[in-house]
Amino acid sequence: MSDVLVETMAEQRVRDAYARIAAADRPEVWIALVPEADALAAARVVDARVAAGADLPLAGLTLAVKDNIDVAGMLTTAGCPSYATSPAGRPGPAPVTAPAVERLVAAGAVLLGKTNLDQFATGLVGTRSPFGAVRHATLPDRVSGGSSSGSAVAVALGIADIGLGTDTAGSGRVPAAFGGIVGIKTTVGLVPTSGVIPACRTYDVVTTFTRDLALGVLATRLMVGTDPTDPSGRPWPADVRLGLRAAPVVAVPRPDDLLPLSPTWRAAFAAAVASVRATGASTVEVDVSPMLEAARLLYDGAIVAERYEAVGAFLDTAPPDADPTVAAIIAAGRDVAAHAYVADRATLAAAAARTEEILAGADLLLLPTTTEHPTIAAVQADPVAINRRLGTYTNFVNMLDLAAVAVPAGTVDGGPFGVTVLARAFDDQLALDLSARLLRESVGSVVEAGVDVLVVGAHLRGQPLHPELEALGARFVASVRTSAAYRLVALDTVPRKPGLVRTGSGSPIAGEVWRMSAGALGSFLAALPAPMSLGRAELEDGSWVVGFGCTAEAGAAGVDVTDAGGWVAALARGIDAPAG
Amino acid sequence: MSDVLVETMAEQRVRDAYARIAAADRPEVWIALVPEADALAAARVVDARVAAGADLPLAGLTLAVKDNIDVAGMLTTAGCPSYATSPAGRPGPAPVTAPAVERLVAAGAVLLGKTNLDQFATGLVGTRSPFGAVRHATLPDRVSGGSSSGSAVAVALGIADIGLGTDTAGSGRVPAAFGGIVGIKTTVGLVPTSGVIPACRTYDVVTTFTRDLALGVLATRLMVGTDPTDPSGRPWPADVRLGLRAAPVVAVPRPDDLLPLSPTWRAAFAAAVASVRATGASTVEVDVSPMLEAARLLYDGAIVAERYEAVGAFLDTAPPDADPTVAAIIAAGRDVAAHAYVADRATLAAAAARTEEILAGADLLLLPTTTEHPTIAAVQADPVAINRRLGTYTNFVNMLDLAAVAVPAGTVDGGPFGVTVLARAFDDQLALDLSARLLRESVGSVVEAGVDVLVVGAHLRGQPLHPELEALGARFVASVRTSAAYRLVALDTVPRKPGLVRTGSGSPIAGEVWRMSAGALGSFLAALPAPMSLGRAELEDGSWVVGFGCTAEAGAAGVDVTDAGGWVAALARGIDAPAG
Repeated sequence: MSDVLVETMAEQRVRDAYARIAAADRPEVWIALVPEADALAAARVVDARVAAGADLPLAGLTLAVKDNIDVAGMLTTAGCPSYATSPAGRPGPAPVTAPAVERLVAAGAVLLGKTNLDQFATGLVGTRSPFGAVRHATLPDRVSGGSSSGSAVAVALGIADIGLGTDTAGSGRVPAAFGGIVGIKTTVGLVPTSGVIPACRTYDVVTTFTRDLALGVLATRLMVGTDPTDPSGRPWPADVRLGLRAAPVVAVPRPDDLLPLSPTWRAAFAAAVASVRATGASTVEVDVSPMLEAARLLYDGAIVAERYEAVGAFLDTAPPDADPTVAAIIAAGRDVAAHAYVADRATLAAAAARTEEILAGADLLLLPTTTEHPTIAAVQADPVAINRRLGTYTNFVNMLDLAAVAVPAGTVDGGPFGVTVLARAFDDQLALDLSARLLRESVGSVVEAGVDVLVVGAHLRGQPLHPELEALGARFVASVRTSAAYRLVALDTVPRKPGLVRTGSGSPIAGEVWRMSAGALGSFLAALPAPMSLGRAELEDGSWVVGFGCTAEAGAAGVDVTDAGGWVAALARGIDAPAG
Repeated sequence: MSDVLVETMAEQRVRDAYARIAAADRPEVWIALVPEADALAAARVVDARVAAGADLPLAGLTLAVKDNIDVAGMLTTAGCPSYATSPAGRPGPAPVTAPAVERLVAAGAVLLGKTNLDQFATGLVGTRSPFGAVRHATLPDRVSGGSSSGSAVAVALGIADIGLGTDTAGSGRVPAAFGGIVGIKTTVGLVPTSGVIPACRTYDVVTTFTRDLALGVLATRLMVGTDPTDPSGRPWPADVRLGLRAAPVVAVPRPDDLLPLSPTWRAAFAAAVASVRATGASTVEVDVSPMLEAARLLYDGAIVAERYEAVGAFLDTAPPDADPTVAAIIAAGRDVAAHAYVADRATLAAAAARTEEILAGADLLLLPTTTEHPTIAAVQADPVAINRRLGTYTNFVNMLDLAAVAVPAGTVDGGPFGVTVLARAFDDQLALDLSARLLRESVGSVVEAGVDVLVVGAHLRGQPLHPELEALGARFVASVRTSAAYRLVALDTVPRKPGLVRTGSGSPIAGEVWRMSAGALGSFLAALPAPMSLGRAELEDGSWVVGFGCTAEAGAAGVDVTDAGGWVAALARGIDAPAG
């Protein structure tokens, strides 16, 4: 991706995107296109800023935004045109761009338009829209998946680089699975939802669709962060994990939990489990039926009242462009009693605790993203039951406070197959890291914060104390060398550890920089035994990071191994003194 | 308190408690007394365990438990006897003791009995009970305050050492104010609420009443901690603050926000503000009206549906012993729509964000605990309006996710006056620390976790970098000396810093141990400049803590000031080399 960015000016990328829009001939993808001239003007501004030296990580990448997310000056229809004109809805152009969009645009993305969706983000099919059913990118008789149908297809067709969706019950994941693309649904609260027409305000998440994971991670990183306009935002915890261990434990469902899949889909999932193992992970079967049960609360229980709270008063005016299936679902939330809602929330809290027990000992959970890939005709003939089956493995995720990444995993029945990597709340990076291994991609960190720490001895990869770093969720940054101001001595410890001693004159010493959260670093230091210490260390490039040292006393008593250039090399050739 | 513990056997303390119960002649305090013989037997078990060497921090302290909290083998009436017998309620003795109670009993507390309350914890007066209005401890024509009336009066009368209450809207604070005792209401979720008949399950907190703050802190510390039986529990965050800065900023309401107070009450509050300033705090006036507004949502809005969810189906059976005022309040929650509840929760989230803005720049907020001290007769004549006024400064606190400590603050109108110190969620310790300064008490930490860090130089109290520790919420533990293995050198830094160098032979060096959360410690280390380091340091008593060091290079270049015995002494006599 970065090659493309460097070589292509934004203006040309945008021009190409509009050519693809025309060539694709999928008018149902868009609810409102930005006029090409306006998008080109925006692209030229990006090019000028880059030329002037601005660091715009998304410079010239094209963006499609689901039409339940505000863009200033454009209507937000949520898939129901009259909602954007009726006094009972939200009439008129949005006054302010949603922070999630604004942050991408500020980073250089250029908006192409607002995309079609299952009306009011209620559906997983992409057919529930007066703007037309969104056809699948490559199998046009099949559904695109929804509710974020247009954004997903715009990305799958190669028109937009980044598609924004929203996800309450799977709307950012099911279309990714059908499209053979990546869908990132972060932990609820990380990305601001201000400027989003709520589906269920408690559980809505703004999501990304991208063709490769790395761009999705970058866009997500840019969108994450609390905003004064979103009182429901949640920051990363101080001990957030920043990296997945090399050999994680991944929970997978029992065969019984996979009965909703046809044999071909079950085989595709089994292949995905094998792929997970091939990354070095181990898998463990767990009973996910309590999670699947919890899913029923989303539509059969009281939670649907959240949908009524969002747009029920408008639908009560019987707008002619309301989708009848959507309107019926939301109307069912009108007469739900608050005490039933309170009881269902308590049931969900218990289910979340039960989920935590089920996942004890596992780093992540792998599930099929959905159950089948229906045709548009089949869904139109049976608009509720198929849609419901599609949500089997997605509906419960936000309600149980899990993070999820939907990744392509081969093909099935002539179309893309997808799996979802699920993580505990705020363990988003762990799910992204396993996804990257599955896709053989290298991805950045979705968490902005972290402290870089230089290790030079027993905490290096492959050395005996490395699991301490892994347990704290440390993330590998780089193999480095120190400046030449250091000497390395073998200390009199068990296990053998080196001491990095700043003497002003010495040699560059090989090491690794790992990033960890402040909470992890504090725990690491609290457990550090004498004579080790953590202070500042100077790298070969002149930068300083937190780094290991030792007491002067221990350093002076050690065996100098500086000339080995690093601890692994010193160990390999042998150290001329017994340890301990 | 600790003197008493050492000198008095549990059996004698319990015998004395039953003598006071008899002498007090306040039968309305208790719904069920433990038979004296049983309590004495429990006390003898405690005495035997202590004699056998068990460390029981509450050994022999007497405990009164509000009768909406389960004790195994006893009925839990919640102030409505038929609730504990009717099939529509929770018939029969509780099978399991609530974790909050169990943790105190495990620490040596001896249960005296279950106490009276405003029925279903709905009220702030203590008069809404078929077991009788609970009279004030010393002014028997006035209300005790509620809903945790019996537990508060049992403590105020000197019968029980610890009274457990519950607090949703002020039930753990208003009775403390009237009783001239301490009420600690922690952040929602810290103390398990399993085994508690909910009032509003989302906002209920188990609270303590004690005559001195230190015991309340100790009991609270023992009760805090997630439990598998409580899915709504919340752990301390990794960067929890453990101590209040020496000169905090305390927000206080504008005069307009105090209009509900009579002139004498306003004067009493002004005196409390002066007392806060006398502790070294500065005060800043803020507009708390948005918080007071939010309070209305508790009863006038949809949140009352939580009360119906808890016990509404039982009250719908029209039990003869239902308090009519309570029954009417809870019945109003029956027909609340879920969408209205969802909307009110969103309003509360916005109000919480607004509260965060109001408190920006302040460490804490001080409010009067309540507005007036009515007579029982007045409340019985007007059971709703007075009760509502009493909650003016308490109703919103749990809904806006604040922690609170109700502390005595002199007298007013011939009775006790009380104020409440409020803190952001999880800043409980900060509120407790200011409360301790107001009461001229020394209290322990309510947070179990933390890392002890030795500082010997610029981070000592009064030294230039000490504010860094304060900003991280570090808590003073002790003035200490190192073992004799160290030398102290003045480093070539600005500001002047010492390096503590372990040489094996040296002198004890004076320092201070401060405790901080792992998150704070990691942030501290991340900001630490060369040549300083943090490793392990040995104290004079042979224990090891995290402590400051420096690079060997810097240590060797420094000026030895070991013979001064500490940095402050070295600075006082002057250092024979220029800094920087």
